[in-house]
Amino acid sequence: MHYRAETWAMLQRVRERSPLVQSITNYVSMDVTANALLAIGAAPAMVHAVEEVEEFVGIAHALVVNIGTLSPPWVDAMRLAADRAGSLGKPWVLDPVGAGATRYRTETARELAERRPTVIRGNASEILALAGAAQATRGVDSAHASKDAVESARGLARQLGCVVAVTGAVDYVTDGARTLSVANGDPMMTRVTAIGCSATALVGAFLAVGDDALFATTAALAALGVAGEIAARESPGPGTFRWRLLDALYQLDEGAIAGVRIAQQVSFNV
Amino acid sequence: MHYRAETWAMLQRVRERSPLVQSITNYVSMDVTANALLAIGAAPAMVHAVEEVEEFVGIAHALVVNIGTLSPPWVDAMRLAADRAGSLGKPWVLDPVGAGATRYRTETARELAERRPTVIRGNASEILALAGAAQATRGVDSAHASKDAVESARGLARQLGCVVAVTGAVDYVTDGARTLSVANGDPMMTRVTAIGCSATALVGAFLAVGDDALFATTAALAALGVAGEIAARESPGPGTFRWRLLDALYQLDEGAIAGVRIAQQVSFNV
Amino acid sequence: MHYRAETWAMLQRVRERSPLVQSITNYVSMDVTANALLAIGAAPAMVHAVEEVEEFVGIAHALVVNIGTLSPPWVDAMRLAADRAGSLGKPWVLDPVGAGATRYRTETARELAERRPTVIRGNASEILALAGAAQATRGVDSAHASKDAVESARGLARQLGCVVAVTGAVDYVTDGARTLSVANGDPMMTRVTAIGCSATALVGAFLAVGDDALFATTAALAALGVAGEIAARESPGPGTFRWRLLDALYQLDEGAIAGVRIAQQVSFNV
Repeated sequence: MHYRAETWAMLQRVRERSPLVQSITNYVSMDVTANALLAIGAAPAMVHAVEEVEEFVGIAHALVVNIGTLSPPWVDAMRLAADRAGSLGKPWVLDPVGAGATRYRTETARELAERRPTVIRGNASEILALAGAAQATRGVDSAHASKDAVESARGLARQLGCVVAVTGAVDYVTDGARTLSVANGDPMMTRVTAIGCSATALVGAFLAVGDDALFATTAALAALGVAGEIAARESPGPGTFRWRLLDALYQLDEGAIAGVRIAQQVSFNV
Repeated sequence: MHYRAETWAMLQRVRERSPLVQSITNYVSMDVTANALLAIGAAPAMVHAVEEVEEFVGIAHALVVNIGTLSPPWVDAMRLAADRAGSLGKPWVLDPVGAGATRYRTETARELAERRPTVIRGNASEILALAGAAQATRGVDSAHASKDAVESARGLARQLGCVVAVTGAVDYVTDGARTLSVANGDPMMTRVTAIGCSATALVGAFLAVGDDALFATTAALAALGVAGEIAARESPGPGTFRWRLLDALYQLDEGAIAGVRIAQQVSFNV
Repeated sequence: MHYRAETWAMLQRVRERSPLVQSITNYVSMDVTANALLAIGAAPAMVHAVEEVEEFVGIAHALVVNIGTLSPPWVDAMRLAADRAGSLGKPWVLDPVGAGATRYRTETARELAERRPTVIRGNASEILALAGAAQATRGVDSAHASKDAVESARGLARQLGCVVAVTGAVDYVTDGARTLSVANGDPMMTRVTAIGCSATALVGAFLAVGDDALFATTAALAALGVAGEIAARESPGPGTFRWRLLDALYQLDEGAIAGVRIAQQVSFNV
């Protein structure tokens, strides 16, 4: 598979079709996430009331469920939306923000994961917590390197029949059988909020235009990583960086996508 | 009427009086909306709890009600605040975000519209939905050109006795009898969130310093459109654009306002 | 005491230890506040559900409680978190946003203040309202100069056994006995949202690494003020300013901290 050509083809499809991505996400990153979707060429819709969430899934092309600032009424909406996406066969992505940090987060994340998302994207600590292998998570940051969670991610993917992405300095994406890695990005991406949430949202946009969930997820993460590298080169600090990142997503062209570093991982001792 | 001179005079009054604009608005655009109000010279207050919303209307100079991320407790507060604004004779603006996309949105928007806002501002799909003429809305984006909704806007304005603004590549503002158009703005304004919400908030600020709701609304949209043109010229992408827009609102001077393109529409076949 | 050297030492400790600062804060400034914490070197966590708020205090190094967009479920969480912080001996900061503007705000702010925060930070109107000496607050802006509230701040500090900071063109920080002033900052800081909220959050980060609450509070305000001066010099307007401010917080070095202007106030007639 020609990963760069395929990533570029997929990005072009997002821009042509402008998929409507419904997000039930957190208060902190809602604004940036919606703007990341717009910048890549998708259409965001932040819709979370139980009174309308199922009806909206009917017109959306993908659903994103992010528990960053969860509370019971929002979790109710997440359940309803996830179930509707499942019954309509629409792709949906779970972002188990802070799983492992509190019992409420861990339990909510697990319960949502059991509803069989198309993709789960988290950092190493979150994926370890979901897989039941976690030590304490430190807030929303990962206390582990992404590599440490690859085996757990594989098990989780096999168990749930979904794709699991562990993001970090290197991202790993697995469906339990195959595993791809993405070696793009910049440390500045850890110095601003909403990068993980935007990654999850972009995965939703790419799922809406691609049949291969493993590769759609990988391509979305690679596109964001390349944009992050471009933005970091032009930024004196994190304030400038987070907006340059939107510029970079908007401007991504074939030349930039040539910088994508996707590789297949052999299955032993990743 | 000398539209440019009047727009400039109105903008100066906003800066001199710094009206307090209470907003019950959505999670996505709350931050940018508040900053747009500050940038134009007004004072924002994001106050939505039913426990305080009516009392706060008493000290505010205008009220903005935006249903972007509605849920029942917020809708309760919107009702209370709108009724209080009505009984105190304070101007208020309704932004029926996503009306037509779900029954809950359409019904809530209609119920609020019946409380007789001073101004309703929406895109074509939202205004068509409010007027009962809508086909499906695609999320929060309009599936129609603003011109397609002018007749519905006129009917709605006459029916409710209010001003209705349909925004798009060209904006139309009508009180049912007169209709003004604004041909300012830039396509980049569709590639970021919070532009519509900021437009509604600025309308609130201008209403607070002007007696003619039709013209105050038009002037606010024109000021935002001119600022959008300036910001777009200086921006490589949407990330930079959204902050340059705040800079441009803050810096708007008489020379920039000379770029305002307001025109009266003849009533036949607009 | 060598205020500049101590401020620099404290900032370095924040960067080295990266304290986890839990914030129960408002929708408007959540994003910027979290990014300000990241920019200074701390780790933010926006966690507010009653189901997890107490458990999270157990892993946080400091707690920030900000009533900017309060509503009953959030106030419940604030009470639980504050009490837990108190019982665990962890520092916590109260930001009584808009106290004096509505009865609900004033009463909530007072009730939280009685739970004995380590520090209270507000503008003059808010501190006067908390101290029972307030006239009407105008939204979230202060209708008073910070100096007007110093005596009330002293009384409040003595009464509650905490540190009280009144911020404005000059900031005053008092424990009832000693009072320090900070003469840093720029008027542009009043033209964007989230500066007060970010100040409170940074106080949380500095409290987490310092034993002297009076000085930790002062140092945090001074660091933010210096960053504000740097950002204002480079910004054509408030849009650029708010992101340059994050860049400046991130880049603060010993040379920049040399611009800190902290002074001890004599106790008569401040």
